[in-house]
Amino acid sequence: MQKQRIAIIGAGPSGLAALRAFESAERAGAAIPEIVCYEKQDDWGGQWNYSWRTGIDQYGEPVHSSMYRNLWSNAPKEALEFAEYTFDKHFGRPISSYPPREVLWDYIDGRLRSSNARDKVQFATAARWVQYNEATDTFTVTVEDLKTRTTSSSEFDRVIVATGHFAYPNVPSFEGIETFPGSVEHAHDFRGAEMLADKRVLMIGSSYSAEDIGVQAYKMGARSVTLSYRSKALGHDWPQGMEELPLVQRIEGNSVHFINGEVREFDSIVMCTGYIHKYPFLPSQLAIDSPNNVYPSGLYRGVVWQENPKLYYLGAQDQWFTFNMFDAQAWYVRDLILGRTALPSVQDRAAHIESWSKRFSELSCVDDEVRFQADYIRDLIENSDYPMFDLDSVVEIFIAWQRDKAENVLTYRDKQYRSVMTGTMSARHHTPWMRELDDSLQRYLSQ
Amino acid sequence: MQKQRIAIIGAGPSGLAALRAFESAERAGAAIPEIVCYEKQDDWGGQWNYSWRTGIDQYGEPVHSSMYRNLWSNAPKEALEFAEYTFDKHFGRPISSYPPREVLWDYIDGRLRSSNARDKVQFATAARWVQYNEATDTFTVTVEDLKTRTTSSSEFDRVIVATGHFAYPNVPSFEGIETFPGSVEHAHDFRGAEMLADKRVLMIGSSYSAEDIGVQAYKMGARSVTLSYRSKALGHDWPQGMEELPLVQRIEGNSVHFINGEVREFDSIVMCTGYIHKYPFLPSQLAIDSPNNVYPSGLYRGVVWQENPKLYYLGAQDQWFTFNMFDAQAWYVRDLILGRTALPSVQDRAAHIESWSKRFSELSCVDDEVRFQADYIRDLIENSDYPMFDLDSVVEIFIAWQRDKAENVLTYRDKQYRSVMTGTMSARHHTPWMRELDDSLQRYLSQ
Ligand SMILES: Cc1cc2nc3c(=O)[nH]c(=O)nc-3n(C[C@H](O)[C@H](O)[C@H](O)COP(=O)(O)OP(=O)(O)OC[C@H]3O[C@@H](n4cnc5c(N)ncnc54)[C@H](O)[C@@H]3O)c2cc1C
Ligand SMILES: Cc1cc2nc3c(=O)[nH]c(=O)nc-3n(C[C@H](O)[C@H](O)[C@H](O)COP(=O)(O)OP(=O)(O)OC[C@H]3O[C@@H](n4cnc5c(N)ncnc54)[C@H](O)[C@@H]3O)c2cc1C
Ligand SMILES: NC(=O)c1ccc[n+]([C@@H]2O[C@H](COP(=O)([O-])OP(=O)(O)OC[C@H]3O[C@@H](n4cnc5c(N)ncnc54)[C@H](OP(=O)(O)O)[C@@H]3O)[C@@H](O)[C@H]2O)c1
Ligand SMILES: NC(=O)c1ccc[n+]([C@@H]2O[C@H](COP(=O)([O-])OP(=O)(O)OC[C@H]3O[C@@H](n4cnc5c(N)ncnc54)[C@H](OP(=O)(O)O)[C@@H]3O)[C@@H](O)[C@H]2O)c1
Repeated sequence: MQKQRIAIIGAGPSGLAALRAFESAERAGAAIPEIVCYEKQDDWGGQWNYSWRTGIDQYGEPVHSSMYRNLWSNAPKEALEFAEYTFDKHFGRPISSYPPREVLWDYIDGRLRSSNARDKVQFATAARWVQYNEATDTFTVTVEDLKTRTTSSSEFDRVIVATGHFAYPNVPSFEGIETFPGSVEHAHDFRGAEMLADKRVLMIGSSYSAEDIGVQAYKMGARSVTLSYRSKALGHDWPQGMEELPLVQRIEGNSVHFINGEVREFDSIVMCTGYIHKYPFLPSQLAIDSPNNVYPSGLYRGVVWQENPKLYYLGAQDQWFTFNMFDAQAWYVRDLILGRTALPSVQDRAAHIESWSKRFSELSCVDDEVRFQADYIRDLIENSDYPMFDLDSVVEIFIAWQRDKAENVLTYRDKQYRSVMTGTMSARHHTPWMRELDDSLQRYLSQ
Repeated sequence: MQKQRIAIIGAGPSGLAALRAFESAERAGAAIPEIVCYEKQDDWGGQWNYSWRTGIDQYGEPVHSSMYRNLWSNAPKEALEFAEYTFDKHFGRPISSYPPREVLWDYIDGRLRSSNARDKVQFATAARWVQYNEATDTFTVTVEDLKTRTTSSSEFDRVIVATGHFAYPNVPSFEGIETFPGSVEHAHDFRGAEMLADKRVLMIGSSYSAEDIGVQAYKMGARSVTLSYRSKALGHDWPQGMEELPLVQRIEGNSVHFINGEVREFDSIVMCTGYIHKYPFLPSQLAIDSPNNVYPSGLYRGVVWQENPKLYYLGAQDQWFTFNMFDAQAWYVRDLILGRTALPSVQDRAAHIESWSKRFSELSCVDDEVRFQADYIRDLIENSDYPMFDLDSVVEIFIAWQRDKAENVLTYRDKQYRSVMTGTMSARHHTPWMRELDDSLQRYLSQ
């Protein structure tokens, strides 16, 4: 039987989870399909690949990563640990619960470093267009080799979309924004808070980006940090010099008017207003069109495109869980492709979607959402041979983490948590987060 | 005979020139093909459509325009005047030789305002993929309606690519660039010099963007402005506080080392390093891959894609001439499509390309290049019914303009030139450029 050909688009944590899933099946003796992974950056790691560039990159492609200098994990690493490649295995000794970007890149890379996964990835190669051919039940995937600027097309039986959904910014407009003489940038283009020293800074938004870039600005000596919320304030016990105000109403030069009548002067605005699902290489019949949430519509078990079940998505959900969720998704997709698990009929899939959508629509609080995502991952792992892990303990970690942040948003990263995979307690880091300006792997592992 | 269907991609000055060319033929009684123009912005005007946005726009598309607040024409308007819609016709009275952006947008828009051209344009619609079908000798053009996020495909007999080539930035890297704590942006993302007041600013590059953004920074009170050239300095008689240095060697925090050993401290860097030809919606067999010059390879008469003569480009050249060159190109392409002028054989086209390439390769100085482009336009106009105009006088305007800039880069925009179309002498403006901070149409036409 002619080998299936599988295209994976994107080599971030999700795409790499798919490569790892097939690799682990191959190591266990299974015959696996021909796999080609297209990655538009020069290296893998997705968001975790910091670049000083913003907007358009050296090839003329939209810059992918939204990460910035001095970015550290914003949740305990014990919540994202791979179930089949633990922190102990990679680092050989306990490390703190909140590593910086480069350390987590090293962990992602480490899992595949000694495998042949890299040979399956075509770097500096951007997916341009995916066309489904009804007659042959295949996909024509057209890509551009960004170095030679040449396009080429080839046929695949299945396509795995793993391009992430935190790279195309959602940039709303505000009355008078064009009169603001200071710097206006979206969190996607934020690369470091050094320039915010002595500045009066406004963050628009009240989620993770607003929270962390706000704290980064405070850490680097901003004169004042104001977060403007639309639906709900973060409600932390903010340090002196940080405040939350409701939504921006209009902007007049340097002064910003808020809907509660307050007015403040600012030097810089960072729009922490989230991201959109965007797949320029997909016809709309194959493309997710959903806000950022834990149950985007159109997907069976969060991964199979209901309208064309030979197309899969990894990492499409809003992310409490990340690395180990992408693994659970990848193992399940692999088993569908290898025929190890059967794909239910379109009607059964529709019923499954309907029941999970109903539960999703009834979620009332954040803790509900985390439990929903844990149950979602449990459902996937029960349908593949990915090692089950104590999902309920990870839910407790997320709940404790939220309390830590509410108590002190400057020191929550100094807390320690225990791995649910190995039982190892994280190390007490050599330097409190607020005093550490060097986010390198070398500095982090130095003492 | 079933009407031909023509797709125009882009509604900047080039795309609008094509719409105008067909409209003028229709007004003169000719039957014209069905024309659909796709424009990804919400309005037409291309670069001349200022947006406060940078990087990625509200639809998740790369922001197109590179223009900024307080941008004024950087060459006399008498060099770009439409031969069949003069400044006198539009403004009804003499205006200065160097209008601001909004005034030239008004002039571009004015020519088509009373026509039905707008009905032929689908705004907020981005070309996604153009596929040539050998069997039917047609192009399948797939576009996305950015508002509804739905893609659709339709067949066209011919495609006119008018997407410009000053929107995808060329962003080189420099050793240590990632250590620069100040702001680093490309000219494409520059929106105004207000923030450069009291700053020590470095422009990398020595062409129009470096020249004008440097002067803008000086005008808005920068502490110092340094332009770093690679091949050749601009060599103007710079005012105190502006200087030219050779190329950047490396960057260490705020200090920049130049290849002649000089070192300077800077607060902001603007990379005025030009743009790349980029057509993400085209297979490479149909896509220009050329540096920015007056004779990009692969085009017959600068407009017909040699390898597939049913695909045309408008505005692909480096631009001394602009609006009236795009008109001459559009009129010629129209006449090819309407069959009014015959397309030579592929061999004859190749010979024509070879002779003009040879002449292009022998150009030695700037004045040669301007004359080359004037002769290029003459060759086009002689092959269509676009009104011929005194191209040699325009060449003289360009030569005098260069002298003006070399003498005083702050006041060259206060000079006056005579229209070659109407003989009207431009007006002396009510305010010297260096003292005018309001670039609005209303202010410009106020006295
Ligand atoms: C600023 C920021 C900070 C974050 N911090 C954390 C954190 O602390 N902890 C945590 O667990 N999670 C964090 N996340 C969440 C993050 O989404 C996940 O950690 C993870 O990166 C998602 O992996 P992914 O593979 O799904 O997507 P990504 O990591 O985004 O990778 C997608 C890949 O697809 C490639 N690609 C995109 N388009 C194309 C194309 N057309 N052709 C070819 N390749 C393409 C990209 O180059 C990229 O390599 C953060 C996210 C952001 C934006
Ligand atoms: C900063 C700057 C200043 C300039 N100043 C002057 C000046 O003073 N005088 C002068 O004569 N010239 C000036 N120019 C030169 C300028 O290139 C021309 O004036 C003119 O704008 C070129 O017209 P165009 O239609 O070829 O390209 P553009 O004006 O760039 O228009 C291209 C159009 O195509 C659209 N488009 C792009 N991609 C897609 C897609 N995938 N799908 C659908 N639509 C798409 C864009 O939205 C845009 O509307 C300047 C250029 C720049 C960058
Ligand atoms: N490691 C780190 O330190 C770090 C740092 C940054 C980001 N991240 C990660 O990045 C991902 C994305 O987080 P994010 O915060 O960027 O996006 P997000 O979680 O989707 O939040 C978007 C925010 O923007 C607000 N918003 C959207 N449109 C708005 C509008 N028109 N006006 C005002 N507010 C508007 C939303 O308000 P509503 O609530 O009203 O919708 C919400 O607060 C997450 O996975 C996060 O973990 C991590
Ligand atoms: N109306 C206005 O005021 C205004 C303002 C800005 C721009 N414009 C228009 O915009 C268009 C583009 O002009 P532009 O100046 O942006 O682009 P450009 O004319 O293509 O010039 C690019 C410049 O970047 C330099 N460069 C390229 N790569 C480099 C590298 N790796 N290191 C150092 N230098 C590098 C080039 O140097 P080399 O010479 O060595 O190649 C050149 O000086 C023109 O049509 C211009 O008229 C108009």
